[in-house]
Amino acid sequence: MTKYWLLLLMTVSTYSATLPPLHAQMNEDKSMLQKIHRDILLHGEAYKWLTGLSESIGGRLAGSPESLKAVQYVHDILDTLGLDRIWNQPCTIPNYWTRGKVENVTLQTEQGDISLPCTTLGGSSGTPVGGIQAVVVEVHSLDDVKRLGKEAIQGKIVFFNRPMDAGMILSFHAYGKAVDQRVFGPEIASKYGAVACIVRSMTNVQDDVPHTGVTIFRDSVRTIPALAISTLAADQLSAWLKKDMYNVRVETHAENHGPTQSFNVIGEILGSEHPDNIIAVGGHLDAWDNGHGAHDDGAGIVQALEVLYSFKRLGYRPKNTIRFVAFMNEENGSGGAKAYADSAKISSRFHLAAIESDAGGFTPRGFSFGAKEDLIDDYKKQLEAIKPLLDAFDLYLKPGGSGADVGHLKFQGGLLLGLRPDPQRYFNYHHTAIDRIEAVNERELKMGAAAMTSLVYLLDNYLKRAPSAPKDQ
Amino acid sequence: MTKYWLLLLMTVSTYSATLPPLHAQMNEDKSMLQKIHRDILLHGEAYKWLTGLSESIGGRLAGSPESLKAVQYVHDILDTLGLDRIWNQPCTIPNYWTRGKVENVTLQTEQGDISLPCTTLGGSSGTPVGGIQAVVVEVHSLDDVKRLGKEAIQGKIVFFNRPMDAGMILSFHAYGKAVDQRVFGPEIASKYGAVACIVRSMTNVQDDVPHTGVTIFRDSVRTIPALAISTLAADQLSAWLKKDMYNVRVETHAENHGPTQSFNVIGEILGSEHPDNIIAVGGHLDAWDNGHGAHDDGAGIVQALEVLYSFKRLGYRPKNTIRFVAFMNEENGSGGAKAYADSAKISSRFHLAAIESDAGGFTPRGFSFGAKEDLIDDYKKQLEAIKPLLDAFDLYLKPGGSGADVGHLKFQGGLLLGLRPDPQRYFNYHHTAIDRIEAVNERELKMGAAAMTSLVYLLDNYLKRAPSAPKDQ
Repeated sequence: MTKYWLLLLMTVSTYSATLPPLHAQMNEDKSMLQKIHRDILLHGEAYKWLTGLSESIGGRLAGSPESLKAVQYVHDILDTLGLDRIWNQPCTIPNYWTRGKVENVTLQTEQGDISLPCTTLGGSSGTPVGGIQAVVVEVHSLDDVKRLGKEAIQGKIVFFNRPMDAGMILSFHAYGKAVDQRVFGPEIASKYGAVACIVRSMTNVQDDVPHTGVTIFRDSVRTIPALAISTLAADQLSAWLKKDMYNVRVETHAENHGPTQSFNVIGEILGSEHPDNIIAVGGHLDAWDNGHGAHDDGAGIVQALEVLYSFKRLGYRPKNTIRFVAFMNEENGSGGAKAYADSAKISSRFHLAAIESDAGGFTPRGFSFGAKEDLIDDYKKQLEAIKPLLDAFDLYLKPGGSGADVGHLKFQGGLLLGLRPDPQRYFNYHHTAIDRIEAVNERELKMGAAAMTSLVYLLDNYLKRAPSAPKDQ
Repeated sequence: MTKYWLLLLMTVSTYSATLPPLHAQMNEDKSMLQKIHRDILLHGEAYKWLTGLSESIGGRLAGSPESLKAVQYVHDILDTLGLDRIWNQPCTIPNYWTRGKVENVTLQTEQGDISLPCTTLGGSSGTPVGGIQAVVVEVHSLDDVKRLGKEAIQGKIVFFNRPMDAGMILSFHAYGKAVDQRVFGPEIASKYGAVACIVRSMTNVQDDVPHTGVTIFRDSVRTIPALAISTLAADQLSAWLKKDMYNVRVETHAENHGPTQSFNVIGEILGSEHPDNIIAVGGHLDAWDNGHGAHDDGAGIVQALEVLYSFKRLGYRPKNTIRFVAFMNEENGSGGAKAYADSAKISSRFHLAAIESDAGGFTPRGFSFGAKEDLIDDYKKQLEAIKPLLDAFDLYLKPGGSGADVGHLKFQGGLLLGLRPDPQRYFNYHHTAIDRIEAVNERELKMGAAAMTSLVYLLDNYLKRAPSAPKDQ
């Protein structure tokens, strides 16, 4: 498109057209939201911070030396923001896991060996030197393994190959419907005697990029080697298996090192009127070691930092305490979230709201929210005042969930929210080697930060503790 | 993020939560919209078609051999869709423009020559062999040129350097506020005696990618050489000019060839109940020669094609005639839109609605709509029935404009709409060499096609000609 005069016609402000009749306060709020967006688009540091975190530290699984560098990196940024308090909060990582040397999966055919793009799953164990070689059994569900039984599984490599449903609009739904294979597939395979497990990568695109993620072996189930292969490799392997029985050799060098210590990183601006009411914003600082954790969840970290910095830049003095939290260990243990929630249990301060950004640095579409069941209606009513203002910026506010980290705060009776960025590209990058700064668009990232800051501003001004929220923690 | 059980909690269907109480028809419509999305995400051809158009034809300015190949390419696709009628509609291109050999802009400093990334503007003329060398005068508006007057401008190269406002959320607004420099800057520079014109690229990002576009010399104003330089180059040039007067040498090989003939490409499914009522969907087929026109506007073409094909795949038989239109020459003359509107003037058929996609193949955010002023309230009222259904798919429907091509149909009294994709990344690519298939995400492109198809389905079922629309064309 070119014609500027038509463009001017076309772009009649979509941001004023839909607002219900405005009173003075709403006009003032709208103007503040515009200021926030402008400030962050022009002066925001989120992209610069994310570049540093992604490129100079990179992958940073909880317990790793890189994760401690990331703790220091975020602490150093907080030091520059002029906050009232900054501290590292100790937490226990239930299991520090390392990948070790590069893994491989090789399909052995009469036409020669075929190397399949793969990545070891977090929590799995390594193979003996030289790897493990066995016949592959393809399945599509945990139930398939039970149905086939020990006889069919014993000594084999189980291959979970149920695709994520690419026909679903919300890719997170599709993920939720497929990821049991990765999280619990290796465990059930082990129970039935498998020597290793291969899982189709959790993504709705067809490519050669393998996606890692956590796999869990509960109780006394024997930990076995487990890897994800790319979706194209999964199709290829499946095609061979349709012709005949084939051996696959897998070699991984994963190790589970058991519990270790780490930290959440916290900073806050004390509230001018209600310092004991906290509005927390955060993401998780740990990231899978195979990539740089730019979208997952460096984006959430730098967006949450930007909330506090934007308030400082704009000279906005919040009524409630605004707290930044970088949670450690979301990916494989939730040690950070548990420690944070434990400290909230013994504190007299109340989390009026907690907002998590952990769905990528894409254009924000809105927020979903939740709370204790007996409080949700109260909060819903309160949020009606905020909705039109967010709507004017094309941001929705819908009941739903919040996030894996802030979800631990539900017991307190505050409002929990999650930023909902556009989900279409997320599973191109999630838990992969290509989750790097190049995959993040600066304006989209900053728009997410501006959405979060806008929400925090509105909550700071309009949200009250639900009357029925427990006063005693 | 990893924990699938938390994900399941988090992703409580946002697509059912916001709908107002549904009656049976709304449920049926919603189900149809879900089918459309699923069909296009799984079986859509849009991305495949766009790959062909972008990669095997590439840039295709109206009048070029490539534009005629594109006409054939789209006609061939239409032939496979099982439509009722397909035809090429002749149109006159007011001016076939060619770039010729690669252009260059060289800043001559005491430290040596500095080559600035540049691209010739469409409609400008070439330099003599060896180029033009002159002192540069930096300005920030058309008024600056008037203010400086002939004395300061005569014999110089005028450099328009007012940036697009990166602080605006809607990048199209920022474009609309800056693009007068490109469209009319060279003309006014010429009027005041400049020998050439340089314009800062129209983008809200800082990089080395120059952006072309049309420039217009009206009436008897002498056509001069004119180029855009990248935003970083513009900053660099400006920094030098702050120190001293400097010469720049520009060399371009542009030629204006005058009027020529070309074609719109049209295909339709006849309506089962109201064949004389047309719902048109389209984009423009021409694209700047320096890139591949993937977002601008190959995306609009393939999304509009997908609307008709999806109806065919789903077996949906529309009540009104659904017409695909590939407009020629949107970029530099609107010859196609004018020919199309002229034919509508002498036809007894009525455009109940016309929808344009020409803002990139990004995730759809909604639609804006317009109509003749005396009809807009009627249409607004009618659209209230459709809004909740689109809202359930996170698509807004707001008053605003439509598009540069369908805008020509306003006189008929129908409803005009424009797809509004997310605008954050558009001006990374607009009119550049990097507007290629790699810049388009398949799921985002298809979501746009699904949004258009959903809208057409709803309009087909709910929209009636405004009672006051002129019956006589």
